[in-house]
Amino acid sequence: MTGEVNEAFRIADKEFGSRLILGTGGAANLAQLEASIKASGTEMVTVALRRVDPSGPGGLLELLERLGVAVLPNTAGCYTAEQAVRTARLAREAFGTDWVKLEVIADPDTLLPDAIELVSAAEKLVADGFTVLPYTNDDPVTARALEEVGCAAVMPLAAPIGTGLGLRNPHNMSLICERARVPVICDAGIGTASDAVRAMELGCSAVLLATAVTRAENPELMARSMRLAVESGFAARHAGRIPRRHLARASSPEEGVADL
Amino acid sequence: MTGEVNEAFRIADKEFGSRLILGTGGAANLAQLEASIKASGTEMVTVALRRVDPSGPGGLLELLERLGVAVLPNTAGCYTAEQAVRTARLAREAFGTDWVKLEVIADPDTLLPDAIELVSAAEKLVADGFTVLPYTNDDPVTARALEEVGCAAVMPLAAPIGTGLGLRNPHNMSLICERARVPVICDAGIGTASDAVRAMELGCSAVLLATAVTRAENPELMARSMRLAVESGFAARHAGRIPRRHLARASSPEEGVADL
Amino acid sequence: MTGEVNEAFRIADKEFGSRLILGTGGAANLAQLEASIKASGTEMVTVALRRVDPSGPGGLLELLERLGVAVLPNTAGCYTAEQAVRTARLAREAFGTDWVKLEVIADPDTLLPDAIELVSAAEKLVADGFTVLPYTNDDPVTARALEEVGCAAVMPLAAPIGTGLGLRNPHNMSLICERARVPVICDAGIGTASDAVRAMELGCSAVLLATAVTRAENPELMARSMRLAVESGFAARHAGRIPRRHLARASSPEEGVADL
Amino acid sequence: MTGEVNEAFRIADKEFGSRLILGTGGAANLAQLEASIKASGTEMVTVALRRVDPSGPGGLLELLERLGVAVLPNTAGCYTAEQAVRTARLAREAFGTDWVKLEVIADPDTLLPDAIELVSAAEKLVADGFTVLPYTNDDPVTARALEEVGCAAVMPLAAPIGTGLGLRNPHNMSLICERARVPVICDAGIGTASDAVRAMELGCSAVLLATAVTRAENPELMARSMRLAVESGFAARHAGRIPRRHLARASSPEEGVADL
Repeated sequence: MTGEVNEAFRIADKEFGSRLILGTGGAANLAQLEASIKASGTEMVTVALRRVDPSGPGGLLELLERLGVAVLPNTAGCYTAEQAVRTARLAREAFGTDWVKLEVIADPDTLLPDAIELVSAAEKLVADGFTVLPYTNDDPVTARALEEVGCAAVMPLAAPIGTGLGLRNPHNMSLICERARVPVICDAGIGTASDAVRAMELGCSAVLLATAVTRAENPELMARSMRLAVESGFAARHAGRIPRRHLARASSPEEGVADL
Repeated sequence: MTGEVNEAFRIADKEFGSRLILGTGGAANLAQLEASIKASGTEMVTVALRRVDPSGPGGLLELLERLGVAVLPNTAGCYTAEQAVRTARLAREAFGTDWVKLEVIADPDTLLPDAIELVSAAEKLVADGFTVLPYTNDDPVTARALEEVGCAAVMPLAAPIGTGLGLRNPHNMSLICERARVPVICDAGIGTASDAVRAMELGCSAVLLATAVTRAENPELMARSMRLAVESGFAARHAGRIPRRHLARASSPEEGVADL
Repeated sequence: MTGEVNEAFRIADKEFGSRLILGTGGAANLAQLEASIKASGTEMVTVALRRVDPSGPGGLLELLERLGVAVLPNTAGCYTAEQAVRTARLAREAFGTDWVKLEVIADPDTLLPDAIELVSAAEKLVADGFTVLPYTNDDPVTARALEEVGCAAVMPLAAPIGTGLGLRNPHNMSLICERARVPVICDAGIGTASDAVRAMELGCSAVLLATAVTRAENPELMARSMRLAVESGFAARHAGRIPRRHLARASSPEEGVADL
Repeated sequence: MTGEVNEAFRIADKEFGSRLILGTGGAANLAQLEASIKASGTEMVTVALRRVDPSGPGGLLELLERLGVAVLPNTAGCYTAEQAVRTARLAREAFGTDWVKLEVIADPDTLLPDAIELVSAAEKLVADGFTVLPYTNDDPVTARALEEVGCAAVMPLAAPIGTGLGLRNPHNMSLICERARVPVICDAGIGTASDAVRAMELGCSAVLLATAVTRAENPELMARSMRLAVESGFAARHAGRIPRRHLARASSPEEGVADL
């Protein structure tokens, strides 16, 4: 028993040293994004096809290549399975990767996933050879359905995108983690470090976040905080926390102690 | 704006690099305690006079000296101001330090502080030249009273000792941190890493814990988790978190995006 | 402005005086169920076709008829849309009503709804002339989909059936209530009275519960408690609660007060 | 076992049919206050000596007398034991009652009680023949001290006065209720009906609130809601709630059911 955990974080055939995945949306500029990526220690970053011109020079992709960080294209802005599948295929061409963060959104107010379209798109993309990482709600049944159609991970939200509300339903997140046989990545809704720690303590394999870092007052500092948070939460889960007790328990028992 | 915070953690005239203080109670043996202290990065450890024979060889004090860790004697097991003052004076002789973690407990079931006896003891010890760090409940008024009688820090509980219940009243902890002009150290009740992060996010300067580490299944690993937690929470507070929002906000806005 | 609210609770073409719907599952015997129904003030009770022999004498249906309480057949125990549709049709024959509480469950451990099968079954039953009240998860997107296929109400869970965990995700419940144009009925997971009050405060039109009453130590007393809870929460929502404040506000201001 | 509870609510030698006590502070006018008092069903109302001219005609006291509601003078606005004791004595003269709601406040921002001054004032007033109902923080040790000096009840806050934050520390409130041998009345911080229900479910004998009703948009309706809330929570506690479960439990078990 030592202070280290020997448990790799593997998605499909790829192993990661970092359990933090960053989104790029909301970053003020490339310099800030570079500082945040370095401070976060991340090894994979999501990129919206709709926002990036992959052929353009001096941009985001060059930066990610220079930093040795993997690109995970997403299908942000897609409202139907058909749109998402088409976007994923374009992204495969543009970015030269068959990994995709699958997003199929139901409406612009909540940006919540449309479970029915999502499962349908996931099934098609898996059949088409993609490594699919679907952004989903926190419903354990939808998570299982995504796993059963062959997704390489499931990525339930903590709360709606950009709300910073943190883990709205720890019970559902627990149920998902207990039952999943693929990595569970907490995606969306993280506001601050303690949210990320709790997700890891509940059993998530990794955390994906964007605006919590990119829109913080000091993105680089928050990126560093999140790196520590994810490591801390992972260690805490494996360290076996003490049980919760209703009444107190002295850490310094008094038995056999001289009366002063 | 960079990824570092330049804010020292100072109690009285002493500056600390680590914002984690460990209790020794509950440790299975010295080897385990040594591993935990190293993994935690702590620079100060509390010791119960009633449990330790300071003159004994090969024991706890030798270990702490070898590790270069400061000793903070506590008055665990005292039920009145008079007992606590007497114990503090014995500890000063025994350990050669005028620092004291002041505990005055009301009853063995809750181990909660007795606010009235506590303030009285603090006043006497300050007058006697002690650097007093009182373990208190989470009442903002008692915290202020302790500050006003000259305590060098205030140490409100997250929850009763050994319960592992985490921060029972974040609102009170916030009020204490906003109003204090001495360091606020969250003491007791921490169960896991996310509890420590939240305490730091709310404005605590440091966290003191014992059983969360010493009674974890893997104390060394939990000690490492807590070190990361305290750093993460401190960074998160200074990084300026995003506001909480009821509705979603896209991290990848769609304006000006081609329709696929 | 008076102490009454003039807002009827209407599902389809039927108006209800009570905003509490009871499930019969778990009741120890008919006498206890009768006492609970009376104490609850409910006007509609769910009945599992699979558990009841509608043609049998002296049973549940006779009791409900005698008490003048409407029967809402459910499709408990169905795992596919096809099963549920078939069960609903049998129930229509057996109970002489085209109202149905639609349940399509994904697995026996969580008893959570299968959103995809549920929406599919709802669509078929609406087309077949049923008044459909679907038991659903707390996903706002699924709730909207059920409304769009023509359900007469949506019935999101507070927590999984029989857990008594109360409202696991108040944020989702709020989003559902804000956006729905049909009644939202909180269904499943209620453990105690405060859970029911919170559901009503968040905007639910009614609460449906079974085991919270039938398996309480004193079912009749808990039924009475739930009746009061639902009325209290409904009144509180319409009364316009005070805003939450971080600092205190005197109820008895001191301005112009003589110094004693 | 029936739907009623036979447990009287008694303070000192007085028995009350209602477990709701109202404060008058914040009421817009006497007509509104009258409507709220009637809707609440309360039998005792607190009055600030500093705000009321007991000899004035047509005022609050006439109203309370006409409604047959007992007056409980409070010592609002007192910052020391001495002030509070003096105010209590003036109130005894003015209102002709030796009952007093004892408030000793530490500062105007939080309006939190000063535990040390409070216990000191309580002791003096008990010795002087008063029936003392002290407004206190939620510290179980202070609650016990107040009981030990002879208070007729203890009245811990849910949250600071006027904040509407609800029960900030249910664990402390539980500890107080479990250990008290006098009635525990939850006083201050209630915002809405569910807060009152939870206080009663945790074991409080009654709830005292003012601004939650007087400053609600519709005070009369909120008063009615609070009456129902207090009754509901009291019944729920005595009804013996179901245990919380991590996994689901069918209310309609399927054993012995025909396969459709």
